[in-house]
Amino acid sequence: MTLPGPASGGLVIFPVLDMPEVEPGDVLAALIAERVELADGDVVVVTQKAVSKAEGRLVPLNPGATGGRQLVDDEAVRVLRRRDDLVITETRHGFVCANSGVDLSNVPLGQACLLPIDPDRSARRVRDGLRALAGVEVGVVVSDTFGRAWRVGVTDVAIGTAGIAAVVDLRGQTDTQGRPLVATEVCVADELAGAAELVMGKSRGLPAAVVRGVDPAWLRESSVAAEVVRPHGQDLFR
Amino acid sequence: MTLPGPASGGLVIFPVLDMPEVEPGDVLAALIAERVELADGDVVVVTQKAVSKAEGRLVPLNPGATGGRQLVDDEAVRVLRRRDDLVITETRHGFVCANSGVDLSNVPLGQACLLPIDPDRSARRVRDGLRALAGVEVGVVVSDTFGRAWRVGVTDVAIGTAGIAAVVDLRGQTDTQGRPLVATEVCVADELAGAAELVMGKSRGLPAAVVRGVDPAWLRESSVAAEVVRPHGQDLFR
Repeated sequence: MTLPGPASGGLVIFPVLDMPEVEPGDVLAALIAERVELADGDVVVVTQKAVSKAEGRLVPLNPGATGGRQLVDDEAVRVLRRRDDLVITETRHGFVCANSGVDLSNVPLGQACLLPIDPDRSARRVRDGLRALAGVEVGVVVSDTFGRAWRVGVTDVAIGTAGIAAVVDLRGQTDTQGRPLVATEVCVADELAGAAELVMGKSRGLPAAVVRGVDPAWLRESSVAAEVVRPHGQDLFR
Repeated sequence: MTLPGPASGGLVIFPVLDMPEVEPGDVLAALIAERVELADGDVVVVTQKAVSKAEGRLVPLNPGATGGRQLVDDEAVRVLRRRDDLVITETRHGFVCANSGVDLSNVPLGQACLLPIDPDRSARRVRDGLRALAGVEVGVVVSDTFGRAWRVGVTDVAIGTAGIAAVVDLRGQTDTQGRPLVATEVCVADELAGAAELVMGKSRGLPAAVVRGVDPAWLRESSVAAEVVRPHGQDLFR
């Protein structure tokens, strides 16, 4: 019989409970470290909403329907598709998502929440803070909720990472028959973000979760911008 | 302090270890039930490769470069993009993926592995088998490895489900400020598949994992075909 948990190659994922509403200037690492006992090698997933609020990325929303639309256009470098109220844009980070990542839910009335300016840097800030405050060496993923082409339903993906691989490259490894593996760059950061969403829940509004038991080989410097954002020249859908 | 585990709203994910190479005619539910003690409400994630092998979806691969290409074309209802050896197709299931899901890795030499004919039915078969053999009421996700437009790195997603919601619809619920949530159909089946991949690992070739602690409200009849495959009329990228 297999016993659950990291000892058998398993993972434990748990939410950081009782977090307060995050306010501009809050130190997320402190809010997290006060509420959960972290261990070396843990991966802390923090939502974009919490990061953006802490970094003061709230802006006034002009009244009327055009207020939000103006913000979306301002945050976009390119519009890929537009249908009715839905706009799929490319942000200056290179993310392709709805409404340039501008978000009105779980935000104070009359305000809108923008993506962090540099989500990898945001992740490093939380990682460095947890190292300083709790004395632990952890990975950090900043997550956001994206739709997908061809599929219904959103999932959480990684928009920033620190101390945990964004993409794990298995090229050069072989399959169980000894042949080289193909298509083996795995975006573990997106899988970690999605796994954390399962315990955070959109309507519960929990801003952070911990994944314990990840492969220690994945704990390294990393960047979503450098590893996950597909360069235009390699992109078949832009 | 938050204690990890389902008691605090957490999840435990663990692989099913010591599975044999799956052969045509194998009963996956039996192979799993012999190796892991399941509980009501668990979600069992099984890879497409294991399901396809058990269902005998292995076909001879004609020698030469064109053998694989012919299979990919046969399995496609539409080619979306083609560049060098990479073909993005739509399968008859409505999945948009590389090479129509035809796979050569971890498959006997000289053969290719096709997607299950009806992955939701495959999931139901495993679910029903586990109910009969182990007396447990579990959800089942059949997972496969897909690339993504605009992002580097593959992730595991759901191609079939049984007994666990594919998409959880939070519309009608409100955010923490009491306003209606938008963009709140969450594809939990894809998040479960990705989470399981983190413990299965591509090169380790593990065919199954268990997720324990999912929201009991998600345990219901479901279908990837009906819930996740985006109808053409709603699709902005096809």
